[in-house]
Amino acid sequence: MTPDQIEAAAARLKGHARLTPLLNAPLLDAAFGKRIFVKAECLQLTGSFKFRGAWSAVSALPAGTKGVLAYSSGNHGQGVALAAARHGLACVIVMPSDAPAVKVENTRAYGAEVVLYDRATEDRDAIGAALCADRGLHLIKPFDDADVIAGQGSCGLEIADQARAEGVTEADVLVCCGGGGLSAGIALALEARAPRLRVRTCEPEGFDDMARSLSSGRRQTNPRATGSVCDAILTPAPGLLTLPILSRLAGPGLVVSDAEACRAMALAFSHLRIVLEPGGAVALAAALFRDTSPTVICTASGGNVDPAFFARTLADHA
Amino acid sequence: MTPDQIEAAAARLKGHARLTPLLNAPLLDAAFGKRIFVKAECLQLTGSFKFRGAWSAVSALPAGTKGVLAYSSGNHGQGVALAAARHGLACVIVMPSDAPAVKVENTRAYGAEVVLYDRATEDRDAIGAALCADRGLHLIKPFDDADVIAGQGSCGLEIADQARAEGVTEADVLVCCGGGGLSAGIALALEARAPRLRVRTCEPEGFDDMARSLSSGRRQTNPRATGSVCDAILTPAPGLLTLPILSRLAGPGLVVSDAEACRAMALAFSHLRIVLEPGGAVALAAALFRDTSPTVICTASGGNVDPAFFARTLADHA
Repeated sequence: MTPDQIEAAAARLKGHARLTPLLNAPLLDAAFGKRIFVKAECLQLTGSFKFRGAWSAVSALPAGTKGVLAYSSGNHGQGVALAAARHGLACVIVMPSDAPAVKVENTRAYGAEVVLYDRATEDRDAIGAALCADRGLHLIKPFDDADVIAGQGSCGLEIADQARAEGVTEADVLVCCGGGGLSAGIALALEARAPRLRVRTCEPEGFDDMARSLSSGRRQTNPRATGSVCDAILTPAPGLLTLPILSRLAGPGLVVSDAEACRAMALAFSHLRIVLEPGGAVALAAALFRDTSPTVICTASGGNVDPAFFARTLADHA
Repeated sequence: MTPDQIEAAAARLKGHARLTPLLNAPLLDAAFGKRIFVKAECLQLTGSFKFRGAWSAVSALPAGTKGVLAYSSGNHGQGVALAAARHGLACVIVMPSDAPAVKVENTRAYGAEVVLYDRATEDRDAIGAALCADRGLHLIKPFDDADVIAGQGSCGLEIADQARAEGVTEADVLVCCGGGGLSAGIALALEARAPRLRVRTCEPEGFDDMARSLSSGRRQTNPRATGSVCDAILTPAPGLLTLPILSRLAGPGLVVSDAEACRAMALAFSHLRIVLEPGGAVALAAALFRDTSPTVICTASGGNVDPAFFARTLADHA
């Protein structure tokens, strides 16, 4: 992938995605002894950075495309649903039948058809492939797609500009990491625009496939598929496109506990007045609780969180 | 006051206050049948728009000023404390001894000296006047001050620009209103920059002194001093400087219940992923639950809220 692809995606996104703010809280900085900037992608349309990649991919489809399909129980599905609706394209989101009702409702409210499947007895890929073949739909992958990575890279272009405006020329850029689409996109953007800002991936304990892959030089998988509150970023292994990019450009990965992610959610509530989901708070948790550069930029990648879970997190961690 | 004063304040604020985003949520628009834009001042430094007016006033002080003093149990005090600290000025905030501990701590953490007084037995104004005289401090009023109003007006300049970028040329601009500093500042800015955007003040039931003053043409007071969860905007009467500005420029005031403000907090959590305090949510509540223009812009003026109160609000209203 080249910087031109990211610039082109950013041009397609202009006026459609939100330029999210780079936030900072003086009292948080004072309490933790470093300058902490937060790129608030929870304020992006649909509540996560995923809208960037979705719009980038959908807007790059050839004329005559009938519609799109995505597998997702969460943020990627909502991003694709809104991007498709705004392009006037049909959209099918394949979701597990045990997905939270609010996520099913929201995906439908964005205009998508939701097809539910049983995780235990049905094959998601087979259902999706059959639907794509029957209806002529185009599959939008969540991270292993050049247009999706390029779209996420638009966030990195904004970080480069916003960091310069703050006088920040050298920093770790901590990125919440599942398959690595956002991390890889930001890394490519910063390589071109601000090479002394260095991406470091952030993952929850037990799901640190990217950190282990980067340190070992070989693609590693996670032993489990579930078991962390950071549901948005639990992927089985790094992407085939994203890992080589991050192996070349990223620093050592960081890993935080679920409790640290929840503590970061509570501090983001009090000091930044933003709503984060656990998976969207791991980079801030790493900024707060791990050794980093003295000035650190972290993505707050999403804020789609159940109100009851959020209320419990405030009770336990605020 | 003239538009030049607001432009001058905005110039002093540039690079020091945050340009807050104008947010929008497609599903909220769909659910309520109007286009709703939210100016997220909860993301401003110190968690409310008050930092704008504080910085404007502090930065306009003559050379040689020793320090500043403000009366506040909340947002104005924190705004003044940070603005003074960043100007290297001494700062005293006079607070009631029953103010929440977290507000006292935060005000101190911004570098201010906190002087506590007993609401029942002591005279706040006498304490402040004596301190100003003894130490040569300059009093920064919360709203009845031209430099403070001009600073809040910088928010209106941003709204004018951001509305134009969204293609919005005609709309009600709903503003959370206590003494009317933010409302008056925004109204003056819009008069100069976007005259078809019309300010309407928003207040909680029982504390609708501004709405009654605007409709009667005479300055009205509130029967009570406390009794709403919207603590940030409970003032006894409109400002002497702000009321004439709003009488000339604002449309009819809107009034919402505490329950509606709390419901707006919960919807802002789910759809916009921002944290609002009750007083910062009354304009959004008016946008949602009152008759307005089909496209409406509302300020979300602050987000300094106790975590336990916020958690209860989610439990009751989300």
